[in-house]
Amino acid sequence: MSISKIPDIVIGRLPLYLRALTQMALDGKEITSSQELGGRLGISSAQIRKDLSQFGEFGKQGTGYNITFLSDQLRRILHVDRVWDVVLVGAGDLGRAVANYGGFVDRGFKIVAVFDNNPQKIGQIIGNFEVQDIDNLKQEIDAKNVDVAMIAVPAGEAQDISEQLVEAGIRAILCYAPTSLSLPEHVRIEYTDPVLYLQHMTYYFSD
Amino acid sequence: MSISKIPDIVIGRLPLYLRALTQMALDGKEITSSQELGGRLGISSAQIRKDLSQFGEFGKQGTGYNITFLSDQLRRILHVDRVWDVVLVGAGDLGRAVANYGGFVDRGFKIVAVFDNNPQKIGQIIGNFEVQDIDNLKQEIDAKNVDVAMIAVPAGEAQDISEQLVEAGIRAILCYAPTSLSLPEHVRIEYTDPVLYLQHMTYYFSD
Repeated sequence: MSISKIPDIVIGRLPLYLRALTQMALDGKEITSSQELGGRLGISSAQIRKDLSQFGEFGKQGTGYNITFLSDQLRRILHVDRVWDVVLVGAGDLGRAVANYGGFVDRGFKIVAVFDNNPQKIGQIIGNFEVQDIDNLKQEIDAKNVDVAMIAVPAGEAQDISEQLVEAGIRAILCYAPTSLSLPEHVRIEYTDPVLYLQHMTYYFSD
Repeated sequence: MSISKIPDIVIGRLPLYLRALTQMALDGKEITSSQELGGRLGISSAQIRKDLSQFGEFGKQGTGYNITFLSDQLRRILHVDRVWDVVLVGAGDLGRAVANYGGFVDRGFKIVAVFDNNPQKIGQIIGNFEVQDIDNLKQEIDAKNVDVAMIAVPAGEAQDISEQLVEAGIRAILCYAPTSLSLPEHVRIEYTDPVLYLQHMTYYFSD
């Protein structure tokens, strides 16, 4: 099976596996099994074995997975065996929290610039960043050759800003705004809208 | 087909449909089609028709969907034709952003209390809330009969806090911490970890 034909839903689980393996390594473990990994993640061991087998042979029957080796392989497969520069657009409450979050760089991502279009926010210091005028977006992305962006702006501004990002060369956008973007097919988009998750859960409530 | 047998992945798309329909209504539209909805969401029209048909007959061949009617039906199906009280645990940068976010209540959720275990944060005012001591968690959840929680705490504290929440009667948790929780089966859990989305996208980068 060609690697490009692996279902997207399988790809979506690989970062979960990597996160759990990284935690196990921090806990001092060296070997794990699909059963143990599945127990942590609420995913069946058969599913985990099937998912991983699409990318190669990472464990031996009966001896389990070497955590360091499998983590390294997953980082390579996900292209996070390097660090990607990221620009953040939006310096409101959420943008500030994202800019101050310390959990990106160990997992392959480093925010390198923060932008806003609000004159009151431009020039403010957030963590290690001085908020820049969004008019500098293209220049900064060009200069730093950035591929990845996160946008934490109001829903009504997200489409316009994402188009500017794409024009500047961005090819992956994580959208915190509660809206759907319409962008050229070569651009990857992922969304995080907490209400979608909350509504997904209340579906299962009987009252 | 019994409603309980509808695949979870279908349920996960309903909030997306509702969000897009709500936006269309705000834009003054009255009627839409599976083609138009699909175009906005990057989902095929056949998929949308198939998903919706699992819950009933919401549109007539050739005349499309009445946006108000379909939105009302989706709110009823997702149990957000009411407002659910929510407690938030964690008053750090992210917790503050979540507490200040104005986009919950129109979509079925209302934060009613914010907790932290850090004496320096307890008593602080965030938006409309005074941060409460996490020792008050059970009492508050009991008193207000809350079913839903959001946790924005460090990964290492998330399991312990979620167990306290479940003991207090919470049955749905949205976890912002980058970790997987192990909780009784009756508890719904959803996760939002931005790095999982970023890694999902970089998989598709060829360099």
